[in-house]
Amino acid sequence: MAKILILTEGKTNPTDAKTATGVLRYRTEDVVGLLDATLAGKTCGEVLGVGGDIPIVGSLEDVEADTLLIGIAPSGGRLPEAWRDIVRGAIERGMEIVSGLHTFVSNDRELAELAQRKGVRIFDVRRPPADISVSKNAARHSPTFRVHTVGHDCGVGKMLVSLEIDRGLRERGRRSRFIATGQTGIMISGSGVAVDAVVSDFVAGAIEREVLANEDAEFLLIEGQGSLVHPLYSGVTLGLLHGCAPQAMVLCLDASRTEIRHCDMPIPSTEMVLDLYERMARVLVPWSRVVGIAVNTSRLSDERADEALDRAHQTTGLPVTDVIRYGVRPLVDAVLRAEEEWRIDQKSQGVEP
Amino acid sequence: MAKILILTEGKTNPTDAKTATGVLRYRTEDVVGLLDATLAGKTCGEVLGVGGDIPIVGSLEDVEADTLLIGIAPSGGRLPEAWRDIVRGAIERGMEIVSGLHTFVSNDRELAELAQRKGVRIFDVRRPPADISVSKNAARHSPTFRVHTVGHDCGVGKMLVSLEIDRGLRERGRRSRFIATGQTGIMISGSGVAVDAVVSDFVAGAIEREVLANEDAEFLLIEGQGSLVHPLYSGVTLGLLHGCAPQAMVLCLDASRTEIRHCDMPIPSTEMVLDLYERMARVLVPWSRVVGIAVNTSRLSDERADEALDRAHQTTGLPVTDVIRYGVRPLVDAVLRAEEEWRIDQKSQGVEP
Repeated sequence: MAKILILTEGKTNPTDAKTATGVLRYRTEDVVGLLDATLAGKTCGEVLGVGGDIPIVGSLEDVEADTLLIGIAPSGGRLPEAWRDIVRGAIERGMEIVSGLHTFVSNDRELAELAQRKGVRIFDVRRPPADISVSKNAARHSPTFRVHTVGHDCGVGKMLVSLEIDRGLRERGRRSRFIATGQTGIMISGSGVAVDAVVSDFVAGAIEREVLANEDAEFLLIEGQGSLVHPLYSGVTLGLLHGCAPQAMVLCLDASRTEIRHCDMPIPSTEMVLDLYERMARVLVPWSRVVGIAVNTSRLSDERADEALDRAHQTTGLPVTDVIRYGVRPLVDAVLRAEEEWRIDQKSQGVEP
Repeated sequence: MAKILILTEGKTNPTDAKTATGVLRYRTEDVVGLLDATLAGKTCGEVLGVGGDIPIVGSLEDVEADTLLIGIAPSGGRLPEAWRDIVRGAIERGMEIVSGLHTFVSNDRELAELAQRKGVRIFDVRRPPADISVSKNAARHSPTFRVHTVGHDCGVGKMLVSLEIDRGLRERGRRSRFIATGQTGIMISGSGVAVDAVVSDFVAGAIEREVLANEDAEFLLIEGQGSLVHPLYSGVTLGLLHGCAPQAMVLCLDASRTEIRHCDMPIPSTEMVLDLYERMARVLVPWSRVVGIAVNTSRLSDERADEALDRAHQTTGLPVTDVIRYGVRPLVDAVLRAEEEWRIDQKSQGVEP
């Protein structure tokens, strides 16, 4: 990928275009435009709050791009019918296609045949590796320090927090690596596995494979998915949690959220959510704990944001930040402290991690 | 299916041949033999403790059968190479193939082509329905009383307990239905969905679909899978639990088990396991509770079995039985009591279930 045009036609808002905003934030220099005829002439910064002056264009002709990246990840994950024409047009112009939809674009006979004729590739980043299988329960013995972001709901910023902590650790000279577990993270980092697209029996095995393949790092920042209290996705969340067997978790909250997304249900209290994650993680790793709280206050005023951070700190007694508003430093410090304590604990038990 | 030959070549033991023993127990009249050359001449009853005089034969020629049913469900689920010849031979003889393996036999090009040429069908019971998607979080509003079997480990008898409670309720004149969630249950009941073969994002949606399709029943006995404390399968377990949103759970224990199967880890205490299931179920259904304990004492002497039942009762204060040794009655009574209490609770809240 080099010159990316992101397709979000009619869906250019932070909720629907989660993939677009992630790519705009972390691969800014590779993006040449965003395609949405309903907003042509505006900039990404104006509409999405990320991407600065990158233009929103009305058609494929309006910008020089070599890759069309589908910038939405709808629940259920099919290509909106109206978008097929745009994808077809892009392939006809010789552009490569990058998609994170559950329904693989490369399985669409017409589009696949057209791509073959034009000699362009279709990357379905959610397609699972062919060789995954059931977990061997091996990640818990890995010498890496595994930090897993977990949430009180889906779409609260777990990927972003993982990426920021990873960067913070590397800036302190530590060997850290971000492990993507969803389509946007894979588009940003170029590797990983979309665990929600894996056969359910193989979720733990899929992330275990990533852990074992990255043992040259000291720290693994493993992106969380869904939530233990989100009834649509909780199975993916727990398979991932047990598959990566984290020593440390960072609990991510959206301070403006009161109901579980797509569900007519209140979000349980932060204490209850934190307690559930620690109970479930300790089934595998008795030392495991939540070491910090990342509060997403993007929809709140400065004053309300500070109240939300104070509340999270008072409730949990843990370091708290909004990584966008106030930076990631408190969480990087918390992870480094936890890693040190864990190594001391391991030595005291005669285990050399 | 009418005349079934079950293939368990070299694997005729209760652990590997879980599928075979389930089919032998609940479809006894349809099974004409079991194929294992290493045990030819013995009976199913002698070797597996079920199936009585049904013979174990050494080759396809030794018995008149129209269906070859693959009687193992190995972890990861591939067809053992040595068995391909037998499956090929069966197809050549015009037999239909029933398989619960993760790797679909009908995706094997050679076997699929042969089956087409011979005009026989291959049933991959684990193949998910084409139209499943993400859950709509709808099962919790179903007027059915949903009873879910859950376990402290995998392979402890959850399917059997579900089938026995279902039968017990029907014998009392109640409209009850067994909902299969694994390959053996589907082979026995002829319907259901193998949730462990579904894309992980769709597990809750897959079982929700079964609940909504069976609302003409009063009671749904939903077979559990894996265990919340089994790190290889916990994601499937939780997706299933939240997808079916049970009011009542029956906790299934194997009294002779101390370690989690395939894992070098002790099984947590019964109190802890029970507590985890109730916490996770109550995220969705605050009324939800464990109403009884089914202890599998098949590997214990009478005396040790009674000790195990006493211990489970003293620990939990709940009705306890081994459904094979002592019958299912205490659990049927417990489910009927729970259903009555739940309906009273719903009425007191102004909800008409």
